[in-house]
Amino acid sequence: MASHSTADSTEQPFFQDEPAGPIRRTEIPGPQSKKAIAHLDKVFETRSLNMMANYQNSFGNYIADLDGNVLLDVYAQIASIPVGYSNPNLLLAATSPEMASALINRPALGNFPQHDWAEILETGILRVAPKGLNQVFTAQAGSDANELAYKAAFMWKRGQERGGPNVDFTQEEISSAMNNQSPGAPNMSILSFRSGFHGRLFASLSTTRSKPIHKLDIPAFDWPQASFPMLKYPLDQHVEENAREEQRCLDETEKLLTTFHSPPAAIIVEPIQSEGGDNHATPAFFKGLRALTRKHNVLMIVDEVQTGVGATGKFWAHEHWNMEDPPDMVTFSKKAQTAGYYFGNPELRPNKPYRQFNTWMGDPARAILFRAIINEIERLNLVQSTAETGDYLYKRLEKLGEKYPGEIQNLRGKGQGTFIAWDSPRRDEVLKKAKGEGINVGGSGERAVRLRPMLIFQKKHADIFVDAMEKVFKT
Amino acid sequence: MASHSTADSTEQPFFQDEPAGPIRRTEIPGPQSKKAIAHLDKVFETRSLNMMANYQNSFGNYIADLDGNVLLDVYAQIASIPVGYSNPNLLLAATSPEMASALINRPALGNFPQHDWAEILETGILRVAPKGLNQVFTAQAGSDANELAYKAAFMWKRGQERGGPNVDFTQEEISSAMNNQSPGAPNMSILSFRSGFHGRLFASLSTTRSKPIHKLDIPAFDWPQASFPMLKYPLDQHVEENAREEQRCLDETEKLLTTFHSPPAAIIVEPIQSEGGDNHATPAFFKGLRALTRKHNVLMIVDEVQTGVGATGKFWAHEHWNMEDPPDMVTFSKKAQTAGYYFGNPELRPNKPYRQFNTWMGDPARAILFRAIINEIERLNLVQSTAETGDYLYKRLEKLGEKYPGEIQNLRGKGQGTFIAWDSPRRDEVLKKAKGEGINVGGSGERAVRLRPMLIFQKKHADIFVDAMEKVFKT
Repeated sequence: MASHSTADSTEQPFFQDEPAGPIRRTEIPGPQSKKAIAHLDKVFETRSLNMMANYQNSFGNYIADLDGNVLLDVYAQIASIPVGYSNPNLLLAATSPEMASALINRPALGNFPQHDWAEILETGILRVAPKGLNQVFTAQAGSDANELAYKAAFMWKRGQERGGPNVDFTQEEISSAMNNQSPGAPNMSILSFRSGFHGRLFASLSTTRSKPIHKLDIPAFDWPQASFPMLKYPLDQHVEENAREEQRCLDETEKLLTTFHSPPAAIIVEPIQSEGGDNHATPAFFKGLRALTRKHNVLMIVDEVQTGVGATGKFWAHEHWNMEDPPDMVTFSKKAQTAGYYFGNPELRPNKPYRQFNTWMGDPARAILFRAIINEIERLNLVQSTAETGDYLYKRLEKLGEKYPGEIQNLRGKGQGTFIAWDSPRRDEVLKKAKGEGINVGGSGERAVRLRPMLIFQKKHADIFVDAMEKVFKT
Repeated sequence: MASHSTADSTEQPFFQDEPAGPIRRTEIPGPQSKKAIAHLDKVFETRSLNMMANYQNSFGNYIADLDGNVLLDVYAQIASIPVGYSNPNLLLAATSPEMASALINRPALGNFPQHDWAEILETGILRVAPKGLNQVFTAQAGSDANELAYKAAFMWKRGQERGGPNVDFTQEEISSAMNNQSPGAPNMSILSFRSGFHGRLFASLSTTRSKPIHKLDIPAFDWPQASFPMLKYPLDQHVEENAREEQRCLDETEKLLTTFHSPPAAIIVEPIQSEGGDNHATPAFFKGLRALTRKHNVLMIVDEVQTGVGATGKFWAHEHWNMEDPPDMVTFSKKAQTAGYYFGNPELRPNKPYRQFNTWMGDPARAILFRAIINEIERLNLVQSTAETGDYLYKRLEKLGEKYPGEIQNLRGKGQGTFIAWDSPRRDEVLKKAKGEGINVGGSGERAVRLRPMLIFQKKHADIFVDAMEKVFKT
């Protein structure tokens, strides 16, 4: 598929064996895929299946299916492929003796950590720790990373109420905890925001407020939700009314922090609400939240599961806020290909062992892979590249939006790398037609088209994408 | 360390490069370990640390530390190493091109499954599916496997109450779910048993009733717990009073199923309560539970996270029950090195897509490893071997208990492979002294010594273990 190239022609490709562009051979799913999907359906959930892939045939930004189709992938496994399919440097890490041992000798990290666990953390996960946070508790997915952060918050808050880490539990606490009753199992909460998404286990789902289908029929904790600012885009053309909207949400947050019947131990917030529809807020809002959490002595957890690891043009999206007082905990997963939460305050280590504990407590194999991802990001300067590609992509979409104002509404993500989205009146149709033009792209919320390309997405890919979108809009 | 060998001298070792016995060079932790632990403590939780290990120097049943000490490991990463450290056949799987691709191209399995996912499941995880269960939902750890099973149970139960899978949600359900309120977020529960352990995320922790330290300060759902039978050992010498105790617990379960203010959608039970102190019950009890769940139309979830994959001398511990009506769901993790729940009834697939969903939905890399584990178990006939070694070990411990009745009390696990435990009046001291004799062994509950060797534990290892225990008892 030829693309109308407007990008800098001197741009060097990151990987030589990446396809030059999408290849369309059959309808998707084609005959081979249909057969394989029917087979899979017998033993595994397939109703949410979007496309069956052959990853051994997928390279760089391109995902291959079973019928010879190759698509430019700006969805990237729900924002979780960082440096391209079949990345040769990740392959080296994946085939190292160190990786093999980590895979076949998986330790219970809390009891029997491996001799080089500190080194793996320091040369990997901790090397990219957000400013002010120098410790980590590792986990396996975004949901449990958030829930472990919640547990740390509850233990910290109850410890304070009890009078500090050296005050012992009372008999009443001990016996009531075993019966799931207060005070041992306290009546406390985590405050989250409307349309936020923090995972789908029971406590994380209690803080998730994205879509009913995520929550229906699942028991939930009676925890508070504050409004998240619903801003007007472009942000720089609606400064005053957006500021008013943010203040309204801050006021609501403060009211809930001080009056909700189940007192919050922490708030959790995404730098950009992702599943909930790509809702942005300004640094002033997040600084306001930090000030409120300080004022009312609750913790601030920043959920960087989707925004983290480079996609916004900073390694962590909350760096855009230039906040002097860092968040208490920052959770990560997805592009890290592992998960956990960072923290700095030593009081967030519970006062006794075995309070924050589980069998595996993370996975050294995945930590080794994240280290290789970090090395690759640095080698290719991919955060900077994503910032620049994002600016280029945003400008091209801005122009396309001027041409097709009915198709691209509320374009957002300016200055946020490739973390770009717009509202589409016929979103699901657009996503589907994009496949016909060789593009794999996803949605968020009720009507947003969200772009979540990998960090190796370059201007030439942006051109292919924008040209394909224009073809979709023409049909 | 010489062992007083009483085992069959014709026994063939499974692995030639396994050490002949433990090696003790220094106190544990020795100087190298102390240095490395102090280093790790700066960035990671170490207060629950038992021993720092070098897994690249660990082979078969033996775990090596950083100071030249090599211990016979009958704890095996909290029961989660199946076929030995540095197993050569797992190494082949871990270094295969298939594994490398799975590691570096991790899919969102619900949306973009890889072309061979059905085959990986069918030749691996599903090949050992419990009788009657032919589908699987994959997960990442025991805790989330259980919570995903709970979600499946709640969706199934509310679907029934609603009038079947084709009846739509009401507007009231949709809006109340978004506010974490009933009826959308229903007032329903999972019934578990006293001293049970099902994980440490919020819903799994609400069903966990093992120790206060696991639960203190963490908000919990107000869910019911029934008594688990506290039987007298050996079971075959207390048949009548044990039967009465089991009936008492069944009666209590039935009462809770019919009267608890938050109606149970399911019960969850371990075949042998593991973290809670190695509490056994008879097949009659579990058959009674199955009958109650049928009678009252709730699901039966069997938590095989610790008991599964061979250690009891059956692949799944619940096979010992010879139950004609299989459990509705069986959860697994640990020795599987991956996690999930098996099910058979197609009604346990939620009625709409995206209801049971998350980004990764398991991990093909770990599923490929489990397949290699299954192959190794079959190649070496390890379930049968574990049954035989367990019988031998039990008899030797029985004799040792006759000699040291103050040290070995309530010996249990007869006929349950190597899943053996006893109560010890000075348990923590025994565990510590065992290290001095070259043995790494763990505890469960308040006073049990629990044996969780790997499936490659043979009679010669049993001899080394029992001889070492005798030395501990003499001091």
